[in-house]
Amino acid sequence: MKIVALAGGVGGAKLTYGLAQILKPGDLTVIVNTGDDFEHYGLKICPDLDTVCYSLAELADPLTGWGRAGDTYKSLNEAIKLGGPDWFKIGDKDLGTHLERTRRLKEGQKLSEITRDFCHIWGIKSQVIPMTDDIVSTILITTEIGELSFQEYFVNQKCQPTIKSIKYSGAENAKPVTGIIEAMEKANLVVICPSNPWVSIDPILNVQGIKKAISEKKVVAVSPIIQGKALKGPAAKMFLELGIEPSAEAVADHYYGLIRGFVFDQLDLNLKNKIDQKGIISFVTDTIMRDRSEKVRLAEMILNISEKI
Amino acid sequence: MKIVALAGGVGGAKLTYGLAQILKPGDLTVIVNTGDDFEHYGLKICPDLDTVCYSLAELADPLTGWGRAGDTYKSLNEAIKLGGPDWFKIGDKDLGTHLERTRRLKEGQKLSEITRDFCHIWGIKSQVIPMTDDIVSTILITTEIGELSFQEYFVNQKCQPTIKSIKYSGAENAKPVTGIIEAMEKANLVVICPSNPWVSIDPILNVQGIKKAISEKKVVAVSPIIQGKALKGPAAKMFLELGIEPSAEAVADHYYGLIRGFVFDQLDLNLKNKIDQKGIISFVTDTIMRDRSEKVRLAEMILNISEKI
Repeated sequence: MKIVALAGGVGGAKLTYGLAQILKPGDLTVIVNTGDDFEHYGLKICPDLDTVCYSLAELADPLTGWGRAGDTYKSLNEAIKLGGPDWFKIGDKDLGTHLERTRRLKEGQKLSEITRDFCHIWGIKSQVIPMTDDIVSTILITTEIGELSFQEYFVNQKCQPTIKSIKYSGAENAKPVTGIIEAMEKANLVVICPSNPWVSIDPILNVQGIKKAISEKKVVAVSPIIQGKALKGPAAKMFLELGIEPSAEAVADHYYGLIRGFVFDQLDLNLKNKIDQKGIISFVTDTIMRDRSEKVRLAEMILNISEKI
Repeated sequence: MKIVALAGGVGGAKLTYGLAQILKPGDLTVIVNTGDDFEHYGLKICPDLDTVCYSLAELADPLTGWGRAGDTYKSLNEAIKLGGPDWFKIGDKDLGTHLERTRRLKEGQKLSEITRDFCHIWGIKSQVIPMTDDIVSTILITTEIGELSFQEYFVNQKCQPTIKSIKYSGAENAKPVTGIIEAMEKANLVVICPSNPWVSIDPILNVQGIKKAISEKKVVAVSPIIQGKALKGPAAKMFLELGIEPSAEAVADHYYGLIRGFVFDQLDLNLKNKIDQKGIISFVTDTIMRDRSEKVRLAEMILNISEKI
């Protein structure tokens, strides 16, 4: 059973962790959003890649889901004392990742090669592939302050500005990393993780050839929206501001035409008929992944679904 | 009594610390070598500037003379685990300086402005000025492996390669930072600190206009060579490889024409006649600065010399 998972931040990282526990080594390929990547203090930061890798390697902070467990903030605190920006938290251990990634990028290595090396060193058995080695930037066009990069919007502005539209700058010319299309071809199932559809999954789908490759596969998506709210992050607020009532149904509509199966939370059981009527095969369960066993349980359910869709 | 000091690494930092203790706030201006500056892990590192500033701010590691007291190495250790270079030690607190400096440089601020801000935040009352805001790189041309930047030679190659010649790449077009020439004009005395003449002081002297400005002042140099050896670093080895027997006398010859006074160690008392015969007024004392009181004592002696030369 070979699976390709599309993932963004913490929710995606949790499900890919669950999948990695039950699949044979090498049978999971995770395609990760890089639309949030940015430069900070001169260093290349790849928040989603790091969240996925730290989770798979069991290095992640269990409280936040991102950053490194037990990290300290000595470097950043010194930079802040010297007048540096404090809005993006970088721990000392985490900083080591950004330092070596930046060094290698400047040396001419590709982000995908660097990620493969890091995964090997961290003992990760799954393939983790950034969606592209080209630069794609998710830009939020807001009413109050115009264009914002994702991290500016998400961390610095705390998701306050109202979103008018979203663009994936550079996506139209971005090529998927070698290996993505091949992994898709071999996959028995593509899983769209419970990540933000607008800013975690859509950037991936906008990279050249990825949507087409996916459209030929059996695809199941997991809703990141429960009872009209996102467990984490601004997904629900984005739906609303883009004129769509946020719900699991809205997520199913968002992926309509691409997905055959759809998993959503038992708290939204009342939506099952409406989603099934769209011709999507839906599955209701507890989708909140509080600990390792719940991540594995959701992953196992998704494997079982594969035969039913 | 206004003093301009030219300084490189640890020896220079020690004497400038001593001078700062006995001069009125603002009466000391330190011009610092930037020929050793380099990029590492994508960050701008200015070893001599940091050594001087950390010393003046009493933040320096008292054991090494460079880096931050009580620093840890979490970030660098993570980067090294990921395959990064380990030859240049950067502590976590020290890294905060490089992060904020790099961020500001990318924002378009000048190194001299950044240094002034950092000094203000660190509570440094003296003026610390990098010799230039332009890029000057001290390059060592070696027999074994050709051209090496100073840090490559000094730290990575541990000063092993044989030096054929030295060049100060970019110096001929480098302009002194605004304020250097003005500070020189106001100075009652210029002190050439006990730093490596070849790689700490000569880069400063090669920046446009600095040597001329100095040549109009009363100048005293302190020998970094004692009994034919350098207290720290490759100064003696460099003299030898460049065909000059290393000694305090050789240092006096190196600065011949520029200096009026010369301070060297009591262990080299036998050289006094030879140095005096050159028309240089020489002073013999204990030049080793083991602690705060010895730094202050040497600084006081230099102030006294000023009236005698």
